[in-house]
Amino acid sequence: MVLLSAGPGDLELLTLKAVRALAQAEVLLLDELVNPDIVGLAPQARVVRVGKRGGCRSTPQSFICRLMRRYALQGLRVVRVKGGDALMFGRAGEEIAFLREAGVPVRIVNGISAAFAAAASLGVSLTHREHCHGITFVTAHTADHGEPDWEALARGGTTLAIYMGIGRIGSIAASLLRHLPADTPVAVVQAASQPGERRQVLALRALARSSLSLEVGQPGVILVGPALAEAVDGSAMDQDAGDGRQRCAAQ
Amino acid sequence: MVLLSAGPGDLELLTLKAVRALAQAEVLLLDELVNPDIVGLAPQARVVRVGKRGGCRSTPQSFICRLMRRYALQGLRVVRVKGGDALMFGRAGEEIAFLREAGVPVRIVNGISAAFAAAASLGVSLTHREHCHGITFVTAHTADHGEPDWEALARGGTTLAIYMGIGRIGSIAASLLRHLPADTPVAVVQAASQPGERRQVLALRALARSSLSLEVGQPGVILVGPALAEAVDGSAMDQDAGDGRQRCAAQ
Repeated sequence: MVLLSAGPGDLELLTLKAVRALAQAEVLLLDELVNPDIVGLAPQARVVRVGKRGGCRSTPQSFICRLMRRYALQGLRVVRVKGGDALMFGRAGEEIAFLREAGVPVRIVNGISAAFAAAASLGVSLTHREHCHGITFVTAHTADHGEPDWEALARGGTTLAIYMGIGRIGSIAASLLRHLPADTPVAVVQAASQPGERRQVLALRALARSSLSLEVGQPGVILVGPALAEAVDGSAMDQDAGDGRQRCAAQ
Repeated sequence: MVLLSAGPGDLELLTLKAVRALAQAEVLLLDELVNPDIVGLAPQARVVRVGKRGGCRSTPQSFICRLMRRYALQGLRVVRVKGGDALMFGRAGEEIAFLREAGVPVRIVNGISAAFAAAASLGVSLTHREHCHGITFVTAHTADHGEPDWEALARGGTTLAIYMGIGRIGSIAASLLRHLPADTPVAVVQAASQPGERRQVLALRALARSSLSLEVGQPGVILVGPALAEAVDGSAMDQDAGDGRQRCAAQ
């Protein structure tokens, strides 16, 4: 079976490999955050929605695993679809381990993670060589591990891309403010690459004061670090929209 | 103009958006590490190779910038192609700043960075929830900044994806060994997603002893952290190759 990355939302950001796997799919297991129009690319597939959103598990993980195994052992072409890149923050590790245990071969198809799409919209490199050595992707989700070690992350000197943090952005900003300069640039991008995309660029100080207007319930990524100083509100990028920002007809 | 990410090498990992931009390209400025077969997707384009490899700058950055500006101001559809995702470790920041200054609108098309493709081949999540909070991408290239702060990076508790480190892998391993357990799993993947892909999984201790057979001059990524314990040599993944690992006809 195939573990497929649906990217950040814009179906134009699917890889050719993903499109081919979808065209052959007989069963599609869809996460909730995936663009629902993706089913148009899998015309032969029975579609099963197995979304989990935020902390609220609408479909238990063990049930999803058993479902994948059942369809795969029936000899069907099963495609499990996850948002972003399936190998980052998607609990793919558990699903791969389960399937391997069950003797089901898994092929993985990569995708674009939201922070990359956000950076493309902001017109900014995630790793400006004058500013940093790299970038760290962390999840702010505390259910499993408690808080990330913000001090160590700040000391690492990389840009930070914080996922699943929109719901508690104020407390994250307060934590970061203890370890980073108050004027550190931050970009908050919700619905990156999608028609409802929302980008806000501000200083960490302002973020801690919640000087932000958020689309409630809309997932997003928080980018933090000097590289974001280059971020623009997008007007320069959007000028080229004529031949550029094509959307899939389905969107 | 378009700043386009060519991904890790397999042209099947290009996004639909990238393929469309290439089809319309009139000038293609190609980095050296990009799969040369990509020119087949840009049949109308004049191809200019502007590669820099390792520390050896075959084409100065300022010359590339001026070239992009010149073609763009001639009204040509210019596509600047970089490997992986152009927004990570590609000096895109400098090129974007230069073009913005010159009044040339830039559109950015994302791609798959090598570490994601490496993880897909290894059949492993980069962020197993039992093991870590996230992943840090760093460059080991010391020309500009000196050594990354390995201690802080190790303390951050994330998986590490080290780029441009193959040439000095022994000294990186020795540095990491001062801050991470000797049995920390490591995967070294060269030419991820390409026909000559080479994957090796070993313990940090063994890496420091150079128990590794490297393809000289072949770029690669070094993945470090407990999440890599799930990495397999790929046999389970390759079973499904029949309908799966299609390559572009051009390759």
